Amino acid sequence: MCDACVIDAVRDRMLSRRSFFKAGAAVAAVGTVGMAPKAMAQGASQMADMTHTLTTDFPTFFGEQQFFMEQKFNWAEHKFNLFELRVNEHTGTHVDAPLHFSEDGQSVDLIQVERLFCPLAVIDIREKAAADADAQVTPDDIKAWIAANGDIPAGACVAMNSGWSGKVGTPGFRNADAEGKMHFPGFHVDAAAMLAETGDVAGIAVDTLSLDFGISPDFATHYGWLPTGRWGLECMANLDAVPVTGATLILGAPKHAGGSGGPARVFTMF
Amino acid sequence: MCDACVIDAVRDRMLSRRSFFKAGAAVAAVGTVGMAPKAMAQGASQMADMTHTLTTDFPTFFGEQQFFMEQKFNWAEHKFNLFELRVNEHTGTHVDAPLHFSEDGQSVDLIQVERLFCPLAVIDIREKAAADADAQVTPDDIKAWIAANGDIPAGACVAMNSGWSGKVGTPGFRNADAEGKMHFPGFHVDAAAMLAETGDVAGIAVDTLSLDFGISPDFATHYGWLPTGRWGLECMANLDAVPVTGATLILGAPKHAGGSGGPARVFTMF
Repeated sequence: MCDACVIDAVRDRMLSRRSFFKAGAAVAAVGTVGMAPKAMAQGASQMADMTHTLTTDFPTFFGEQQFFMEQKFNWAEHKFNLFELRVNEHTGTHVDAPLHFSEDGQSVDLIQVERLFCPLAVIDIREKAAADADAQVTPDDIKAWIAANGDIPAGACVAMNSGWSGKVGTPGFRNADAEGKMHFPGFHVDAAAMLAETGDVAGIAVDTLSLDFGISPDFATHYGWLPTGRWGLECMANLDAVPVTGATLILGAPKHAGGSGGPARVFTMF
Repeated sequence: MCDACVIDAVRDRMLSRRSFFKAGAAVAAVGTVGMAPKAMAQGASQMADMTHTLTTDFPTFFGEQQFFMEQKFNWAEHKFNLFELRVNEHTGTHVDAPLHFSEDGQSVDLIQVERLFCPLAVIDIREKAAADADAQVTPDDIKAWIAANGDIPAGACVAMNSGWSGKVGTPGFRNADAEGKMHFPGFHVDAAAMLAETGDVAGIAVDTLSLDFGISPDFATHYGWLPTGRWGLECMANLDAVPVTGATLILGAPKHAGGSGGPARVFTMF
């Protein structure tokens, strides 16, 4: 089956689930902060930066350099410094807008601002990911999180902590085998579908290069999740520093018109 | 006097004030949220997006296009969408890092994360700016704000609301005269010095293209402010929507290594 055919087949399969997803695509018009109840009650006092520093050698999904800086003005000659940046939208800690994997989905500038402030639910799969780089967040992992922590909060971001963040400076982040196939964790398509079907999850986040696990042949999770009008966040940093529940994510997505995503500044408060 | 000479003279004048500034450059090591006391006490429940949508025709200081998008993958051919972006760091709603106007100042990735969460003090000069496009925030404006609202909060962002934000889609934003000189409001260098001397102001923000007013011949405010280790924010949107005191600014600065600034996603909570 050719790559495009696989992609078409997956897309068609996911589109048939659309009826489940529509409820979750409802939009609030007013910018009330989607603070986690715990943070609201106690007053958040700690914050964390969930963003990797973007460097020209930051690892990429395609394996080629995707970020470039050209100095246009410099102190010695001009008495000020200024760079021009060139960057593939899907580089570094970055957001995937619905448009990234849909024909006419929401572009990054149009994501409702109240969907960028989210209660954060962290699903810790570090143990199984350490044993198997092809591990995924499964529906059972979500059920276990709910059993331990209660329901996924309304408007949440559900994040996978696979322990991959610390590998950014090493070949282990892409973890390509002799054939060039990558091995890193991601969300199983059924887990993404389960979250979409709950109706009120704003986004999913991973500490790896893709919402799909590295060996995915078909971007099934991308096609299953993004066309439902929800966002994704990839290459998230610092998940070890935040509680598995009770934190609020602030997604500083870029706001260029018509974009499919882009490098983001991401914080948590807790 | 040549431009470079003017710049040197201004820089030397400002460097002589450095002793006043050093206290303000002190760095906290722990990421406690710099929430406004009011927001802390009441629990913030509203938020606002302070970011203009970035378009390829967004007005620029230099007058030339500074943002470009090239579609590398498209739905019809590839079944996903992806753009490469090319952008001058100082475009759209964007941050100026200390490095922008200093030889060895802090680059944008190194700004302490707790300096990106700030109590927001909004100085409203809309009335005088409507009467005179060359109006500036002066020390008297700051004194009047303090008289009305109390001291500038520790770690604050002090923002100028000149009413310029609504002009973004019009020639009035740059407001260039027949000779090409721009006319828009900014911070007077003495106002910036006054804020720097208070010791604990994280940044200043404007709703115009420059920290300096448009007709400035010498970037005096840039040279006075940024080398003290503080940031600037330009082309801020939506200041009419937030209270003059009591809001918390969240500055989603980009985090590319060695950058002099860049497009930012900016929010307030109140």
